[in-house]
Amino acid sequence: MPAHRTIGRLSLYRRLLHALLKSGNETVHSHQLASLADVTAAQVRRDLMVVGRSGTPRRGYNVRDLIDGIGAVLDAPMTQGAALVGAGNLGRALLTFFRGRRPKLSITAAFDVEPAKIGQVIYGCRCYPVEELERIVAEKGIRVGIVTVPASEAQHIADALVRAGVKGIVNFAPVPLHVPAGVYVEHVDVTMSLEKVAFFARQNGLATGPPAEQT
Amino acid sequence: MPAHRTIGRLSLYRRLLHALLKSGNETVHSHQLASLADVTAAQVRRDLMVVGRSGTPRRGYNVRDLIDGIGAVLDAPMTQGAALVGAGNLGRALLTFFRGRRPKLSITAAFDVEPAKIGQVIYGCRCYPVEELERIVAEKGIRVGIVTVPASEAQHIADALVRAGVKGIVNFAPVPLHVPAGVYVEHVDVTMSLEKVAFFARQNGLATGPPAEQT
Repeated sequence: MPAHRTIGRLSLYRRLLHALLKSGNETVHSHQLASLADVTAAQVRRDLMVVGRSGTPRRGYNVRDLIDGIGAVLDAPMTQGAALVGAGNLGRALLTFFRGRRPKLSITAAFDVEPAKIGQVIYGCRCYPVEELERIVAEKGIRVGIVTVPASEAQHIADALVRAGVKGIVNFAPVPLHVPAGVYVEHVDVTMSLEKVAFFARQNGLATGPPAEQT
Repeated sequence: MPAHRTIGRLSLYRRLLHALLKSGNETVHSHQLASLADVTAAQVRRDLMVVGRSGTPRRGYNVRDLIDGIGAVLDAPMTQGAALVGAGNLGRALLTFFRGRRPKLSITAAFDVEPAKIGQVIYGCRCYPVEELERIVAEKGIRVGIVTVPASEAQHIADALVRAGVKGIVNFAPVPLHVPAGVYVEHVDVTMSLEKVAFFARQNGLATGPPAEQT
């Protein structure tokens, strides 16, 4: 199975390829994609081997064919549902963000504690009481959870998701989650990102950015 | 200057140390912090050398002293302002998230194109028309920008921020930004995170998670 950074880069390449296609490019060279993605051309070629595609030195890769190849690896054969827990501002931002954007991945149930939200359809997604999380997630066979609750609630929500059969969690709460082996967690750490940027922004008078690192 | 991953880890350690303090721990060993942060104990000790702190084999580190030491590296001597561009759901989520949380870092101006938002105070932050971005950011001496606009607007907003003197950008738009040397960009790639989690969640029947990688 590809490592998780490879999967992350494939997701990025696909988004860049869609942008290239939109601006009229039918073919692309590994060094062009590498420059857009801020990685090396050798890295791009290795990653695209994972999806079974190789370019020619003359014409590079066919953009549409690459998009299909990446989709065959990344996308679910059928639409994959996700559960969002916490329908606050961030939760609602994610609901609008994903609405209709990824045909193979969609947020199919939202959960919240606020009585005013329960029973509502928020950007196309029904909001249920959080007490019903385990039952509904299990019944719908949902395997992906998105945690957008306050830090103090995050671990017990993660525990409930795991009990309901969730195998992957995107965690936006500013705390690390502890999950059993076999469950994949990706932490989107907004505080860390802002603190890093604030730090490097203060080093003004700089001729160059921070030391280059492969990310 | 510390590399950007070091800075990211220091931000994470500080959050974990605050949590430890809250649960009554006055001292911590590198291996405990390492386990919470999901890195090696040697990594923790190296990072803490950057902030000029070393523990003793017997008692470890003093938690409060570490928090102070990290703050001396990470925090601005005076409150550092940030500009948020795009006061939609995500923008508003960030405004609530940071309100009063980081005394040394605060979102001091928001910008949007929607007439209904302009002039409003959203979670304590005034919203200005985006046409005034360059003037206001330059006048206030803001060095940090947060981009929460749609993909199609992100690059020209980044250009305007850079012209106004911004040296660091947190980019939430799903496109890479091109900025001159000396400007630091951190991309919070929500699509990539969700696609990765969805991919690994599908590999159920797995005994273990994806191949371990240092993140």
